[in-house]
Amino acid sequence: MPNITIKKVKAILTAPVGINLIVVKVETSVPGLYGLGCATFAYLEKAVKCVVEDYFDPLLHGRDAANIEDIWQLMNNNSYWRNGPVINNAISGVDMALWDIKGKLANMPLYDLLGGKSRSAAAVYRHADGKTLEEIAENVQKFRDQGVQHIRIQWGGYGGKSENIHRPDAVPQGIYYDPKLYIRNTIKLFEYIRNKTGYDVELLHDTHERISPIDAVVLAKELEPFRLFFLEDILSPEQGDWFRMIRSQCSTPIANGELYNNPKEWDFLITNRLIDFIRVHISQIGGITAARKLAIFCEQFGIRTAWHGPGDVSPVGHAANIHLDLVCRNFGIQEWSGIRDASLEVFPGSPELRNGYVYANDKPGLGIDINEELAARYPCKTEPTGWTQTRIPDGALYTP
Amino acid sequence: MPNITIKKVKAILTAPVGINLIVVKVETSVPGLYGLGCATFAYLEKAVKCVVEDYFDPLLHGRDAANIEDIWQLMNNNSYWRNGPVINNAISGVDMALWDIKGKLANMPLYDLLGGKSRSAAAVYRHADGKTLEEIAENVQKFRDQGVQHIRIQWGGYGGKSENIHRPDAVPQGIYYDPKLYIRNTIKLFEYIRNKTGYDVELLHDTHERISPIDAVVLAKELEPFRLFFLEDILSPEQGDWFRMIRSQCSTPIANGELYNNPKEWDFLITNRLIDFIRVHISQIGGITAARKLAIFCEQFGIRTAWHGPGDVSPVGHAANIHLDLVCRNFGIQEWSGIRDASLEVFPGSPELRNGYVYANDKPGLGIDINEELAARYPCKTEPTGWTQTRIPDGALYTP
Amino acid sequence: MPNITIKKVKAILTAPVGINLIVVKVETSVPGLYGLGCATFAYLEKAVKCVVEDYFDPLLHGRDAANIEDIWQLMNNNSYWRNGPVINNAISGVDMALWDIKGKLANMPLYDLLGGKSRSAAAVYRHADGKTLEEIAENVQKFRDQGVQHIRIQWGGYGGKSENIHRPDAVPQGIYYDPKLYIRNTIKLFEYIRNKTGYDVELLHDTHERISPIDAVVLAKELEPFRLFFLEDILSPEQGDWFRMIRSQCSTPIANGELYNNPKEWDFLITNRLIDFIRVHISQIGGITAARKLAIFCEQFGIRTAWHGPGDVSPVGHAANIHLDLVCRNFGIQEWSGIRDASLEVFPGSPELRNGYVYANDKPGLGIDINEELAARYPCKTEPTGWTQTRIPDGALYTP
Amino acid sequence: MPNITIKKVKAILTAPVGINLIVVKVETSVPGLYGLGCATFAYLEKAVKCVVEDYFDPLLHGRDAANIEDIWQLMNNNSYWRNGPVINNAISGVDMALWDIKGKLANMPLYDLLGGKSRSAAAVYRHADGKTLEEIAENVQKFRDQGVQHIRIQWGGYGGKSENIHRPDAVPQGIYYDPKLYIRNTIKLFEYIRNKTGYDVELLHDTHERISPIDAVVLAKELEPFRLFFLEDILSPEQGDWFRMIRSQCSTPIANGELYNNPKEWDFLITNRLIDFIRVHISQIGGITAARKLAIFCEQFGIRTAWHGPGDVSPVGHAANIHLDLVCRNFGIQEWSGIRDASLEVFPGSPELRNGYVYANDKPGLGIDINEELAARYPCKTEPTGWTQTRIPDGALYTP
Repeated sequence: MPNITIKKVKAILTAPVGINLIVVKVETSVPGLYGLGCATFAYLEKAVKCVVEDYFDPLLHGRDAANIEDIWQLMNNNSYWRNGPVINNAISGVDMALWDIKGKLANMPLYDLLGGKSRSAAAVYRHADGKTLEEIAENVQKFRDQGVQHIRIQWGGYGGKSENIHRPDAVPQGIYYDPKLYIRNTIKLFEYIRNKTGYDVELLHDTHERISPIDAVVLAKELEPFRLFFLEDILSPEQGDWFRMIRSQCSTPIANGELYNNPKEWDFLITNRLIDFIRVHISQIGGITAARKLAIFCEQFGIRTAWHGPGDVSPVGHAANIHLDLVCRNFGIQEWSGIRDASLEVFPGSPELRNGYVYANDKPGLGIDINEELAARYPCKTEPTGWTQTRIPDGALYTP
Repeated sequence: MPNITIKKVKAILTAPVGINLIVVKVETSVPGLYGLGCATFAYLEKAVKCVVEDYFDPLLHGRDAANIEDIWQLMNNNSYWRNGPVINNAISGVDMALWDIKGKLANMPLYDLLGGKSRSAAAVYRHADGKTLEEIAENVQKFRDQGVQHIRIQWGGYGGKSENIHRPDAVPQGIYYDPKLYIRNTIKLFEYIRNKTGYDVELLHDTHERISPIDAVVLAKELEPFRLFFLEDILSPEQGDWFRMIRSQCSTPIANGELYNNPKEWDFLITNRLIDFIRVHISQIGGITAARKLAIFCEQFGIRTAWHGPGDVSPVGHAANIHLDLVCRNFGIQEWSGIRDASLEVFPGSPELRNGYVYANDKPGLGIDINEELAARYPCKTEPTGWTQTRIPDGALYTP
Repeated sequence: MPNITIKKVKAILTAPVGINLIVVKVETSVPGLYGLGCATFAYLEKAVKCVVEDYFDPLLHGRDAANIEDIWQLMNNNSYWRNGPVINNAISGVDMALWDIKGKLANMPLYDLLGGKSRSAAAVYRHADGKTLEEIAENVQKFRDQGVQHIRIQWGGYGGKSENIHRPDAVPQGIYYDPKLYIRNTIKLFEYIRNKTGYDVELLHDTHERISPIDAVVLAKELEPFRLFFLEDILSPEQGDWFRMIRSQCSTPIANGELYNNPKEWDFLITNRLIDFIRVHISQIGGITAARKLAIFCEQFGIRTAWHGPGDVSPVGHAANIHLDLVCRNFGIQEWSGIRDASLEVFPGSPELRNGYVYANDKPGLGIDINEELAARYPCKTEPTGWTQTRIPDGALYTP
Repeated sequence: MPNITIKKVKAILTAPVGINLIVVKVETSVPGLYGLGCATFAYLEKAVKCVVEDYFDPLLHGRDAANIEDIWQLMNNNSYWRNGPVINNAISGVDMALWDIKGKLANMPLYDLLGGKSRSAAAVYRHADGKTLEEIAENVQKFRDQGVQHIRIQWGGYGGKSENIHRPDAVPQGIYYDPKLYIRNTIKLFEYIRNKTGYDVELLHDTHERISPIDAVVLAKELEPFRLFFLEDILSPEQGDWFRMIRSQCSTPIANGELYNNPKEWDFLITNRLIDFIRVHISQIGGITAARKLAIFCEQFGIRTAWHGPGDVSPVGHAANIHLDLVCRNFGIQEWSGIRDASLEVFPGSPELRNGYVYANDKPGLGIDINEELAARYPCKTEPTGWTQTRIPDGALYTP
């Protein structure tokens, strides 16, 4: 078999449901043979495109598409400085696309290539929020009626309800929340929902790194009686050492990592068993090659996967998540935000949710395609992000 | 720009509200350009004045006022032995005055010089005590009515009510308290107040290092259900290693440090995340230069500031606290004891409290001045300190 | 004083000596008042420009230029994922420019603003290499004749001489080196040079993370008798835990960090005193705000600074290095690669080397300007990096 | 694509060069589609065959051949007690055969399936021994003349020359060696060879776990000046904690693991970086699935692979080693004992050594076949093992 080489690497930007998505397409020396990968860093989409097209395209032109590990290392080292979200997403786009190509060449779905299915489908958790406790309870019930067994509950947006915040004069405009009020309300929320539902449903909660380290300890401990499936992203990457205190005081299961880009953010958490679920955003750490290695690393320590699966990941990225979920022995749970109609049209072959489980299709590679013409109808918007400018009562940015 | 040199360093002693205050004034080679710094060690005010005037004045004469870091190291090392409260306060007086001068030269408030405001104002906590539970509750309510969100509650003086103490014959005269009674009463106090207020107000408590280490563990643990904002100064500088036991057993937030002078008292607490708030008296550690570095050190570990802000700090020192509060990313809370009228007259430009937040003014430097003529009308009293001679029931001094 | 706001943020790309440089210019609401900052990530220059102009410019428009800390946190958090080289360089460009503006407003050189000079000038080390031992010795002597006291010696390029490498059939084209041969030659080099020079000159060596962890231990130990000033970048960011073994076996001083972007790469090295010098590339960690904090963090642990000062940093970045060097109590040494004529013309006010020491000028702010018209005559080249594709004998990329 | 199921699992025993080899053949529902795997536990070959044919054949019949991870876990858990060499070799036989089948189905060499080549070929080390120092030196030279760069040197059999051993009366018959004499001789050996060769050749040594723990420390330290590429199997699986002492005292690179079957034997060595090379016998840990995971685990810690490659592994096992070597980023070195003619005939497609590097062929899957008819002509011998009955001078069995 003659070498199949990389002919072109390009980034496709599209926003079918209003969130910027970045998908990399790698074309090969075989006409019609290409792969797709998710490179979605929704908030710096142009910077990712720039790395992909201005640097990786010439770097990779003519290289053997089979040598994914070598190409991953090449991309990771080529600009010397590494391990950041812009570069990692660009790497992920190419990496997933090369695995997609390999699957197509092998005529196998990616899960088969990586060692075959360990399970039939991936159990998911869904997100139920609301303005009132009653509304949240209704949304929990809706998901239960759909067969979903794991439900994340939140009162208001991340950081909670923002009413009645006592502030100084002349604070900057913006979204405000009170971390202490949020904690009290979250405890009330769990009391209310557990009273309604009993313990036959798995409940989760996400703090989005919005509280201080000692408050993280307090919240994990206060929530212990409500037997969460896990408590999500309670500490920022910079403050992971505080997990030691959480671990010494309560048994609330811990999932962390959607913000991680760098191995030093997670290695000590795993080695010291400070978390129970690793939930990185796989394009943020460099794609399938990196995520597969991370899953295997975690497997040595009894830690399970819970890949980040929000709206700001493309359906190609969701597909990659699911293929890994099906293979990895230590799969835990899959976050599932749903893929809306416009996205399903742009990305034919997207994974499907049925009765609380998500399924990959059985086509070769990632099994998903992109309708470029349709994608072009949904241009991305380039603008500063608003929701990350949230402030606490005294007017300070909350910076974890 | 020609060098601006130090012309004269002097200490001004004044006691407008009966507490000894020491303020250092540094005059420069530019007529009318001077700075003020707080050097308040109320209980050894003459010793501080002596260091300032007999040693630092000749040491610093003619030196470049711009080189604060260099001068700080010079003062710290000049008498070889170091890290004690007399010297540190003298250093602080000069250090703050030099920052004040730099701000005036730059025509910028100190917070701007140090990197600009991170928040609009600094949230404070106030002190509510009383002889009865009812009185304390009333005082809590008074502060809440003023918009204060964080209230420290104490039953009786530090160490608690002193009635019915069972003592041997012929104990020395003095103030007595019973550490065990104090602990029981403090728990009662929190039960009472939380029943009254619910959990929508932040409560704090200060033990003033008046209980034994194992009782400190017990108290921190017993108070855990009352969700304190923090428990203050529960261990003496010499017994900081006991924080390891507190941290392994409960999640009560810990603030410590008003007695610290020496880096070895705090460095392991920070590195090991044994406290949540550092609350040194900034003149006791050498002023703004030292406090800014300590805040940055704490920031690496997710530990926040809560600078000591009692009556025995001058308004100049309060102003320095607030400037740091406005700048430091990891500001937590500011103790605020209030500045009474006589002090406000002596120190025009003092920070102001409104609705639970304290504000710096926006004048250059520290933004505060001293009316020396008026200050001279309130001479200090030099006498041994009484309240630090507190004894436990068997007649022993409580020495931590 | 009315607020001075940010009016425009732009990136200037220029390559006066053939290396891509990126400088950010922040213009303010005051006509003619602007600042400059180094954002040089030479190998992804367009991606940095994209973040600066497409994201930071609209994000920062109209914000108060005084609030550097707040703006730093805003930039760091705005795209949610953080701590990577593209974003950090963009942050650095703005951060340095805001400090430059603050210095101009204060009419003070940056070193004065940050606390004043702790030293008169910064001692530097220079780089002496060559193809033969004799040539290296001559180059060492040339630097000594110029008054340079600290000299880094290397035999051949990083990774050493590449002659006579035993390789398999059909390896990829590229630059090859043999890590084991490099180690043997480096030991020979030190034997030769120490024989020539004795111990009256400080020698350094840089491994550029090109050997395996256990070989790093071996090399540090073998070089111990030659009393290096320090051994540089011997372990990659991902393998920093191996410093524990180096520290337990030899006293060779260790400097590390030119590749660091993320606090988790350095925090445990500092806390555990595993290195002696931190030598980050300050634009790679986010500029002056971040570097000043890192220096202060290191100061608590007796670790000194040795900021990265290669050709792929702009003269603006060199100036920022020097201002920090002059202020920080725990300055160690400054890498100095020299600034060549074309750069000096483009960047009037660049720091100057005289007799082994480098000097900042005493103009306000960073004290350096850019001639934009001249800069435009030296356009950057966008292409994949070649020297990072170095391979070891079996054809593998060396990936640390 | 319809599922391809497992139709038959059988073990083929053959001893073409006098060493028992066990190869598993997995036949599928597709006529002519089968895979081969190495299950060579030469000393209990019938027990392995028994597990394969009496237990695994019925267990696996009809299962989907694609689901390797699932089948691996099934085999590992089916008899409840696990992690021993008989079961692990049986697992390995099936596991490798399933990967072989997957490669054939994908029409890809295994290295491609696993992520593609990271290098062109695998550098090997060869074994040079002899009765005299001169003979060993000659054998070293022979290998060097063949282009081999890494040579393991041994004086006499494992444990060394057995002359002049001082023994009590009436010891049992057997092979004797003196551990202390062996240590002294090994040091002499290195002095002799290094004097002859200089340091331009990489030398290795294998102790075969034949010395006491403290003697292991002594030997590692005494050999440090000779700069071994690595010192091999110096501690038994049961005594791995002694590596802590070796690591605290010397920088001799350590390779260990040919006896390991159980994750608890290696996990703490890796997590604590107590070894530099993992050199398990991959069929002894369960085949490619287990070895790939172990390599990835090691990669996180900067530890490299050096898979066991002795005469008591089949050419199928050698092929599996090489495929992993080509893929794994953290490949270190490959032990290569050579494959002799009779084996090459029985196993067409065996890997080839040229000029110090070993090459996989580029056929699909493992790329190796078995001539069953020919294999049958070399029946295995079933008898107790002799060389493992080695005794020390007092007549005791050396048991580590």
